[in-house]
Amino acid sequence: MSAEGLSRRRFFGLAGAGTAGVIAAGAAGGAIGRATAGEPLAPPASTATDAVPFTGEHQAGIVTPAQDRLHFVALDVITDDRAELVEMLQAWTAAARRMTAGQDAGEVGAVEGGQYAVPDDTGEALDLPASGLTLTIGFGPTLFTTADGVDRFGLADRRPGPLAELPAFPGEAIDPAISGGDLCVQACANDPQVAVHAVRNLVRLGAGVVSVRWSQLGFGRTSSTSSAQATPRNLFGFKDGTDNLKAEAPKALDQFVWVADDDPGADWLAGGSYVVTRKIRMRIEQWDTATLADQEQTIGRTKKAGAPLGQAAEFDPVDFAVQVDGQPAIPVRSHVALAHPTNSGTAILRRGYSFVDGSDGLGRLDAGLFFIAYQRDPETGFVQVQRNLRTDAMNEYVQHTSSAVFACPPGVTGPDDWWGRTLFS
Amino acid sequence: MSAEGLSRRRFFGLAGAGTAGVIAAGAAGGAIGRATAGEPLAPPASTATDAVPFTGEHQAGIVTPAQDRLHFVALDVITDDRAELVEMLQAWTAAARRMTAGQDAGEVGAVEGGQYAVPDDTGEALDLPASGLTLTIGFGPTLFTTADGVDRFGLADRRPGPLAELPAFPGEAIDPAISGGDLCVQACANDPQVAVHAVRNLVRLGAGVVSVRWSQLGFGRTSSTSSAQATPRNLFGFKDGTDNLKAEAPKALDQFVWVADDDPGADWLAGGSYVVTRKIRMRIEQWDTATLADQEQTIGRTKKAGAPLGQAAEFDPVDFAVQVDGQPAIPVRSHVALAHPTNSGTAILRRGYSFVDGSDGLGRLDAGLFFIAYQRDPETGFVQVQRNLRTDAMNEYVQHTSSAVFACPPGVTGPDDWWGRTLFS
Repeated sequence: MSAEGLSRRRFFGLAGAGTAGVIAAGAAGGAIGRATAGEPLAPPASTATDAVPFTGEHQAGIVTPAQDRLHFVALDVITDDRAELVEMLQAWTAAARRMTAGQDAGEVGAVEGGQYAVPDDTGEALDLPASGLTLTIGFGPTLFTTADGVDRFGLADRRPGPLAELPAFPGEAIDPAISGGDLCVQACANDPQVAVHAVRNLVRLGAGVVSVRWSQLGFGRTSSTSSAQATPRNLFGFKDGTDNLKAEAPKALDQFVWVADDDPGADWLAGGSYVVTRKIRMRIEQWDTATLADQEQTIGRTKKAGAPLGQAAEFDPVDFAVQVDGQPAIPVRSHVALAHPTNSGTAILRRGYSFVDGSDGLGRLDAGLFFIAYQRDPETGFVQVQRNLRTDAMNEYVQHTSSAVFACPPGVTGPDDWWGRTLFS
Repeated sequence: MSAEGLSRRRFFGLAGAGTAGVIAAGAAGGAIGRATAGEPLAPPASTATDAVPFTGEHQAGIVTPAQDRLHFVALDVITDDRAELVEMLQAWTAAARRMTAGQDAGEVGAVEGGQYAVPDDTGEALDLPASGLTLTIGFGPTLFTTADGVDRFGLADRRPGPLAELPAFPGEAIDPAISGGDLCVQACANDPQVAVHAVRNLVRLGAGVVSVRWSQLGFGRTSSTSSAQATPRNLFGFKDGTDNLKAEAPKALDQFVWVADDDPGADWLAGGSYVVTRKIRMRIEQWDTATLADQEQTIGRTKKAGAPLGQAAEFDPVDFAVQVDGQPAIPVRSHVALAHPTNSGTAILRRGYSFVDGSDGLGRLDAGLFFIAYQRDPETGFVQVQRNLRTDAMNEYVQHTSSAVFACPPGVTGPDDWWGRTLFS
């Protein structure tokens, strides 16, 4: 039985119009269906079972309303054969088209030579709907030139200047084992099993061509990327991403997120973006012993409402002129003050997730933020913001432990297009 | 403003009758609202936003229909003062009552001496509904007597015989750093942020009394504990837990799960149970290169339908007499054959979760099953089943890397009752 064109649900001959349809009814156009800011963040986005279109001018998974769960994987290419790499990217694209549409990655139960063959899908998502799955690919600096300067795949002269290793920042403790990578795939979905399934099946398709370098699960989105989404809370207990760039502001996205036609590398990267990932360990136990006043002065917003200090509601304007007792209501070293476009001079699209990776052997939870940000140029995006945060009061409570940067090509368009075509053709 | 008696939602003065109510409408009595077996496993159980009652004859979180997300934590007691431990258990109980009802663990924004005090809740679940949260406590063998035989808290003569370290099994590679523990708390919820929040706030309340020994997140339930639930799939891609003990079979639960009035330790443990946890690494890459026929012969069921081999549908009886070509349809060394009550002579209530903990440094996903099982006696429960699995064909694809056992007291009953009262009073 061929699964071509069948959704995972229809694969089992089921109507699929029951529970899923009812529950997704409130979620128009792939948005997450939780609307008015200030309303409770009722059921997480796993209520959005619909598919997000895979093709388009830009890759899905960047301004797509942030799904609730993440599986991010970075891979190293282990072959020297450019043709093998291209073949894998084509196979990945075909599988990504299928999986983001709620189908399996390939056939389960094909018969070869009278025997059931090795399944082309690992099966754990067979009964699950598309769940808003997006798969977003990126190419790391080392794909173009190794650290030793070797031009591995004839791509050395295609590397755009902005695709360079990030500089060091004060206070960080970067672990190379969970940093960098030749390729990345960001899988976001409203069901973690769907995101995990997608990464696993791509890794499986890449056997002999790529090897997993590191991977990270995130359980809760920490930013909104659409004004239709309620603002979630990070593990500091604060609303996060209120003033994030949003899908509904295309001019700002053109200015700060999408690579333009006259940018470096535009011949293959126009319409794409750069993604920076940073694993940020939160010193949860220290934070939890700080007073509410300390916490709010550190962030620059109130904890419950998420209002800028000196204001009443979450979406009140961030106004650095407001004073309380002759001092700025929003302290000048608070995170909001230093990160805000007004003071940092730039903006990035944040798309991070909370993580808990067990405990750290010292009786503490190993938890924090897996920071993901998209920008038109890492130097004028993340790097500029991060440099401005050197005196951030929040630095007392966080430490960056991983770092990576990837160039994300534009979206796959026609039925014959594939991930990386503009780079490799 | 006191948060006493207010739900987290009402804490913000919101009706809370909107989205959440609509979505939870199909989920009666805390069940997960996906019904008929064979229907698609539509949106994960995060659609169940309701509260599960905290009090009762038995602790919640054992036969409660398995929620979709897990945060399990094991802790070591770092005080020698029995009174401090008792005080913490009482504070934990109060917080658990609140959090399982969808409230915060304590007040955020209390004013002491004219200053905002340290918040009594960390805040990251402030906008979230109860989400089916259950918190289940257990006491490890080392709480009663240290490995050196020291009677730490005057409990040595209260240790029931069955509460003993598990024996070694062939092929396992147990890591002590993620095994054992004086106490455990299993937090299950339909929203991972709610489970993580609960564990974090209990750990915070236990500062100076307990220290986190290990903790584990699970993203997808791998068993049903109610016949109202559809059977989920594990990371082998197979339906798991079809023949699990179920809440709807109270006689079997009395026989196999609950400690009875004439069992060892019944003076404090009657109505309780024992939980065994095992982290089981799956050799995903090896499994994914096996043919479908090999996989099905290893498990003893079909991959798509989950039917016992030789039968057609998932809930068809497991019949070891059925033959195909003169051989048992279900191979004698298959996992189903060896684990089934018919052949193992016993039954356990499985309640495990899938995990992905990143990658292993060798290019492979670090993934598998965090196995959790409840039983009346570990020796005649997990240990007996596991011994019967020594020739299990599945052993080629799995390795146990952690082990723990805890005695879980009966449920908290009246408003003055607390976790461990029967043991410490």
